[in-house]
Amino acid sequence: MKRTIITITLVFVASLLQAQTSFKKDSTLIKSIYNTALLNGKSYDWLDHLSNEIGGRLSGSFNANKAVKYTKAELDELGLDKVWLQPVMVPKWTRGQKEYAYIETGPGQTSIADICALGGSVPTPKLGIKAQLIEVTSLDELATLGREKIEGKIVFYNRPMQADLINTFEAYGGCVDQRYSGAMEAAKYGAVAVVVRSMNLRADDFPHTGSMTYGDTPVDQRIPACAISTNGANYLSSALKILPSLYFYFKQNCKTYDDVLSHNVIGEITGTEFPDKYMLVGGHLDSWDLGDGSHDDGAGVVQSMEVLRLFKEIGYKPKHSIRVVLFMNEENGLRGGKKYAEEAKLKNEKHIFALESDAGGFTPRGFSFDLDEANFKQVESWKPLFEPYLIHYFAKGGSGADIGPLKEEGIVLAGLRPDSQRYFDHHHAATDTFDAINKRELELGGAAMASLVYLFDTYGTKTELTSIKN
Amino acid sequence: MKRTIITITLVFVASLLQAQTSFKKDSTLIKSIYNTALLNGKSYDWLDHLSNEIGGRLSGSFNANKAVKYTKAELDELGLDKVWLQPVMVPKWTRGQKEYAYIETGPGQTSIADICALGGSVPTPKLGIKAQLIEVTSLDELATLGREKIEGKIVFYNRPMQADLINTFEAYGGCVDQRYSGAMEAAKYGAVAVVVRSMNLRADDFPHTGSMTYGDTPVDQRIPACAISTNGANYLSSALKILPSLYFYFKQNCKTYDDVLSHNVIGEITGTEFPDKYMLVGGHLDSWDLGDGSHDDGAGVVQSMEVLRLFKEIGYKPKHSIRVVLFMNEENGLRGGKKYAEEAKLKNEKHIFALESDAGGFTPRGFSFDLDEANFKQVESWKPLFEPYLIHYFAKGGSGADIGPLKEEGIVLAGLRPDSQRYFDHHHAATDTFDAINKRELELGGAAMASLVYLFDTYGTKTELTSIKN
Repeated sequence: MKRTIITITLVFVASLLQAQTSFKKDSTLIKSIYNTALLNGKSYDWLDHLSNEIGGRLSGSFNANKAVKYTKAELDELGLDKVWLQPVMVPKWTRGQKEYAYIETGPGQTSIADICALGGSVPTPKLGIKAQLIEVTSLDELATLGREKIEGKIVFYNRPMQADLINTFEAYGGCVDQRYSGAMEAAKYGAVAVVVRSMNLRADDFPHTGSMTYGDTPVDQRIPACAISTNGANYLSSALKILPSLYFYFKQNCKTYDDVLSHNVIGEITGTEFPDKYMLVGGHLDSWDLGDGSHDDGAGVVQSMEVLRLFKEIGYKPKHSIRVVLFMNEENGLRGGKKYAEEAKLKNEKHIFALESDAGGFTPRGFSFDLDEANFKQVESWKPLFEPYLIHYFAKGGSGADIGPLKEEGIVLAGLRPDSQRYFDHHHAATDTFDAINKRELELGGAAMASLVYLFDTYGTKTELTSIKN
Repeated sequence: MKRTIITITLVFVASLLQAQTSFKKDSTLIKSIYNTALLNGKSYDWLDHLSNEIGGRLSGSFNANKAVKYTKAELDELGLDKVWLQPVMVPKWTRGQKEYAYIETGPGQTSIADICALGGSVPTPKLGIKAQLIEVTSLDELATLGREKIEGKIVFYNRPMQADLINTFEAYGGCVDQRYSGAMEAAKYGAVAVVVRSMNLRADDFPHTGSMTYGDTPVDQRIPACAISTNGANYLSSALKILPSLYFYFKQNCKTYDDVLSHNVIGEITGTEFPDKYMLVGGHLDSWDLGDGSHDDGAGVVQSMEVLRLFKEIGYKPKHSIRVVLFMNEENGLRGGKKYAEEAKLKNEKHIFALESDAGGFTPRGFSFDLDEANFKQVESWKPLFEPYLIHYFAKGGSGADIGPLKEEGIVLAGLRPDSQRYFDHHHAATDTFDAINKRELELGGAAMASLVYLFDTYGTKTELTSIKN
């Protein structure tokens, strides 16, 4: 009996001491990650080049190809174990000449705020399109109005993002159906075009583009779709109150080409213990064309590159193989993400963890996860390690679009969650530029990511441990 | 025995139910505070006026007086129980003509980045001052160098803010002795002037002003002090490596006048149960003169006003008297804060809680507190109420300069803690302007403050409860 008690006590004390030792070791390593990022980070310089020397990187564009070349060359410099390009066919859509819009306030016209074509939209006829507007706040409202009220008109979707939601991505999610499906739905009732209020919480003059779908609408029934700035939408709405029958004119000559060849850019540090088990960090290399894509998703690209650079810099040799993947074509096709997952499956590459940064380069607040309860418990046990860095948010719910296709039983998917309040001021607009990036905020994101990858590398995923035990 | 168990169980269940009910009530009220702030906030409009219609509000300036008039008028509009001005004498210092600097790289001169006089500095002689530079990284280094190396020279303080600290205020605290005491210390060794690296973590071209002291240095031995931008400081340092004997020239014609009359602006909602117990929210109305003082501390001013407006708007009638105090002269004298505390003491006004917002208008992360353990435990019990709003940081350590003089046994002092990463890009510089403010971030700060005030109003401070019980 006495011996049993002594044994239990010893085991308890030993495990307590071990936990303390691990905590100290982990704290020290994480501190060295942060110090290296903040004192000697590379992500800001990389992003400066991507944003200012290259610029907007829409899939299939010359700039997107330049970005592939540039990031591959930079990864080559890091002394990783492997760096390669993964070919992937991507859509090619070009905006063409600057869009133009006015309203008829006869006699004569009144110029209105900037508009922009939605990504993937068909052009207007060469001389533009002019029709009466009908303002709606939801797709459902179309059915209520019916063909009678809609036919021959331009549907104006004007439901604003909900400002009282704290997470602005939630507000985006509650609004983006207007942009994504608005044209497809309006065409069913005979609308000739759509104009959509920009997905932006701020009142400003910048139109925000973004992807849209025509679904299986026959080619000859596809109608042009543009976005108007939030100020422009408010203006249009108030003008309609004065002149309900006013005509709206716009012109855009965007064009869709055949798919073209592009690439995911991949770098790897091969694991010392489990070289055939993969942990992935990534962002997407393509961006929309209006700004230079600094926040969406230049930030995620350079932060992901920085994770591997930090490991090299501090001399950390991961047990698992760690890959950085710079995905092509997140914005209008997700071809890169799909291709990567497809090949990983073909080659039977076992991915146990994937982390994406695609929510802007602002101060990191934490991570969201797509994982089971056992893994989430483990993540929660790491909270005290992140607290000194003001990383507090650990929640289930979503990771990243590009890593979504990797989802299968047991894999842990995660997304970096930066502060979201300013994000939609910049998202998909001409305001997504390098001057809106703060160096420290960007670096803190890369450091937070590297710290999480380090912890998963050290302790494994719970699923992995279970499968090892079995 | 059985009865005792039943009683204990019932008491336990009852207290559990009560806790649940309180939590629900508090959650609902806090939600209405946030919704009102985000959907119908007033702070952004107020700040727009303060920043763009009035501008920089250095103590004793015409603009500072305009700001007093404007904020009093706005408080008058809110239907508070009392609004008044509290007279206070403040220092008056003016910058005068734009400062100018160059280095002699003979033959001829090389213009260098902008400099600015430190607040309170004496001017240079009318024709400027020119001397050799001696670069140091600390006040201690002066003693090592001694009078021999320093006499007749301009001391160039060039210790940067420490970038690997997560809390940028800590980095500021570790550097600001150069600005505050640099001239006073250098004068002791016969220096003729000082130039100080700006307190800024970012590499840019903007000099940052701020307060300095001459201590008891006799008037005729006071030497002029200016700040140089971080880029300028790096340039100067590298130029010194090439030309160690180079001459630095600068000219500034700032001037100190006699003290002038100014005012704290105060508004009050009188408490329904404890009208003679006061809870205070505040920020400082004065700012430096280079920018328009949007972050420092226009944000704190309008957020504090917003706390009382939100209470009126949602129909919340506080039990304690709640005062908003817009302090004058935080930047170069703290006269407003001292005067308020002095009068409160004279009138025997019992203050139980004071909260200041003076750390910028960025996304609020939490609060820091100056309080005893019992009160801190209570604050920590409120964490779950703040989590939906991503307010995670509750720590001991500091509150705000203006409310500091109120400190006495039992009072709870608190400071709003916004994200600090970008703050010193703007602090005391021409970059502290309204365009660097995000409406939502600003509004979230006011809502977080109102929520904390509501909780202290509802549950009291622990000290208060103890004194009631006794």
